[in-house]
Amino acid sequence: MATRFDSDVYARRLERAAELTHRAGFDAIVVGTGPDFRYLTGSAAETFERLTVLVIPARGRARVVTARLELAALRDSAIGDLGLTVADWVDGEDPYALALDGLGGDARLAVSDTLPALHLIPVAQRTTVAPVLATPVLRELRMIKDAAELDALRRAGAAIDRVHARMGEFLKPGRTEADVAADIDAAIRAEGHTHAEFIIVGSGPHGADPHHEQSERVIGVDDVVVIDIGGPVEPGYNSDSTRTYCFGEPRADVAEAYAVLERAQAAAVAAVRPGVTAESIDAAARNVLADAGLGERFIHRTGHGIGLSVHEEPYIVAGNDDVLREGMAFSVEPGIYFGGDWGARIEDIVIVTADGCEPVNSRPHGLVVLPG
Amino acid sequence: MATRFDSDVYARRLERAAELTHRAGFDAIVVGTGPDFRYLTGSAAETFERLTVLVIPARGRARVVTARLELAALRDSAIGDLGLTVADWVDGEDPYALALDGLGGDARLAVSDTLPALHLIPVAQRTTVAPVLATPVLRELRMIKDAAELDALRRAGAAIDRVHARMGEFLKPGRTEADVAADIDAAIRAEGHTHAEFIIVGSGPHGADPHHEQSERVIGVDDVVVIDIGGPVEPGYNSDSTRTYCFGEPRADVAEAYAVLERAQAAAVAAVRPGVTAESIDAAARNVLADAGLGERFIHRTGHGIGLSVHEEPYIVAGNDDVLREGMAFSVEPGIYFGGDWGARIEDIVIVTADGCEPVNSRPHGLVVLPG
Repeated sequence: MATRFDSDVYARRLERAAELTHRAGFDAIVVGTGPDFRYLTGSAAETFERLTVLVIPARGRARVVTARLELAALRDSAIGDLGLTVADWVDGEDPYALALDGLGGDARLAVSDTLPALHLIPVAQRTTVAPVLATPVLRELRMIKDAAELDALRRAGAAIDRVHARMGEFLKPGRTEADVAADIDAAIRAEGHTHAEFIIVGSGPHGADPHHEQSERVIGVDDVVVIDIGGPVEPGYNSDSTRTYCFGEPRADVAEAYAVLERAQAAAVAAVRPGVTAESIDAAARNVLADAGLGERFIHRTGHGIGLSVHEEPYIVAGNDDVLREGMAFSVEPGIYFGGDWGARIEDIVIVTADGCEPVNSRPHGLVVLPG
Repeated sequence: MATRFDSDVYARRLERAAELTHRAGFDAIVVGTGPDFRYLTGSAAETFERLTVLVIPARGRARVVTARLELAALRDSAIGDLGLTVADWVDGEDPYALALDGLGGDARLAVSDTLPALHLIPVAQRTTVAPVLATPVLRELRMIKDAAELDALRRAGAAIDRVHARMGEFLKPGRTEADVAADIDAAIRAEGHTHAEFIIVGSGPHGADPHHEQSERVIGVDDVVVIDIGGPVEPGYNSDSTRTYCFGEPRADVAEAYAVLERAQAAAVAAVRPGVTAESIDAAARNVLADAGLGERFIHRTGHGIGLSVHEEPYIVAGNDDVLREGMAFSVEPGIYFGGDWGARIEDIVIVTADGCEPVNSRPHGLVVLPG
């Protein structure tokens, strides 16, 4: 699979970015390497110490500023096909002057949110107007996925489903979380991801910490185990899916609480459609749990957008009244956490369609019972 | 191996950071998650969207601001032992106000270089004095390694040496670069790293691109192959070592140029001692190559500091007149690149000692001849 889409995809995105830059009242946006840069140029290059930025003025031609040494890293991107100006610099030159070339000292600049202080501060020192975040341009662009992106998210979903389907090969009592994670890592790659971006193996009490990753803890036959895994498939779109496992029949209290969680997740998915708010989806899951007396056990938001970043807009959280639109993609992942004992989470990625949503994951949602 | 050093290590670092903050004329430094944060607190937590920062005032107690959801991630750090104030926030609260609590609106703030625009801009909007980079504090601290850090770098060097020693198991004509890289990845972990941070397998013409990573190219029996690999060992210190391989006897022109490269690398290592400039080490390597007519083939700097980051101060590059001091650690890695044909590089990490340097790598420097 190619590491980027056809160049005309990026040409359209750049044109739209310039329009939105103009509309937001910025003179230019300055985009550092990372997901925004990849979204706009097809380049997965990541630089830190040496400045590489895409500068998109509201009027005029976009250009890329990069260290000469990094030119080769841009070779496979769409930058050549797009006819962008590429201004390269060598040690001793001032890359910030190159980046701001043609923009006045009072230019209203907006920068991508990943641009590090190392580069933002020198940029800010060369203008009289303090830079602001380019969120109005970049979030609008990236939040609504086009057909090619949705296809990539579907491929990512199918790939991580295949890993969950094989979980019985890896997840066994007596193994450590880290050993299980190593096998999952290999399976994530074998099933079509370029690498694993995160692997949570939360056994027993570790499952009660939503941010636990993995440890040397030996998994016990009585443990409930939360497996939350994902990573990118080319060209860079991420999977993210959680299932909860046990060995043999679960405890009655576990089965009972889990059944409520399953209803909460289904209720949230059923609520997704264009025109409703992000927070209404969060509420749909939360209300089911609260009605069953489990409201206090659900200690995080219901979901996050996904695409080139594992976490991006829209966030499915109380207080976010952003209205869902066709083409958005996000996780629906309520969880319940019983500190010191066990936890459970169910997570699928869904795509907002014209009249509802399409989950990209298709593994069963029940507690998965493996042989003990 | 523990994920951090004893708490007293961090207590000393924090005390020294406050001293340097005062001396630099800052009212406080604001340190985002990443290597600086790990250096000062022992926490490897990495957050992006939700603000987590360490604020060290020139006078008074340092404090950590973090989302309540991330508190668990700080549990294994030294933050508890150190008695730092931890101010946690939940969605809907203003974490930037918490971060700046007790500092005036005209505070002179300095920020760590990885702090992203997403957080720096809101911080800057709450002060009347534009923030600057905290480099004078953080680079001074991190550039001179203490005994525990040097021990970690030695362990990392020995671990990556073991991977190079096993290269004949992985690197064979007829395999793709990606297949070789997958085996190296497993070996890097098996030999004691937490993961592989980078794996360059540059075969034939790909070896002529210093930034090539790996590809589906099938390695040929006549190829020269550059293998540049590394990753962290606990508590987070990196290895980085390059050797160049071939199958059977090399071409005469390859052997001849390689012999010059070997002399260049040795000359640079021999030049390392306290009191000389970083650029003098670069010159020592470059002069040997230039004298042999290969100056144009060496298209990058000679090295970079290493520690919690793979690339950090001091940079061994023309124009850097920083004076080397005991306890610095950096790579010495000249290379020669013949576009479209082949390349070679030799890289060891060295530690500056009282009267010279100590390489942490000990694999032979010659072109490594594997069976074809």
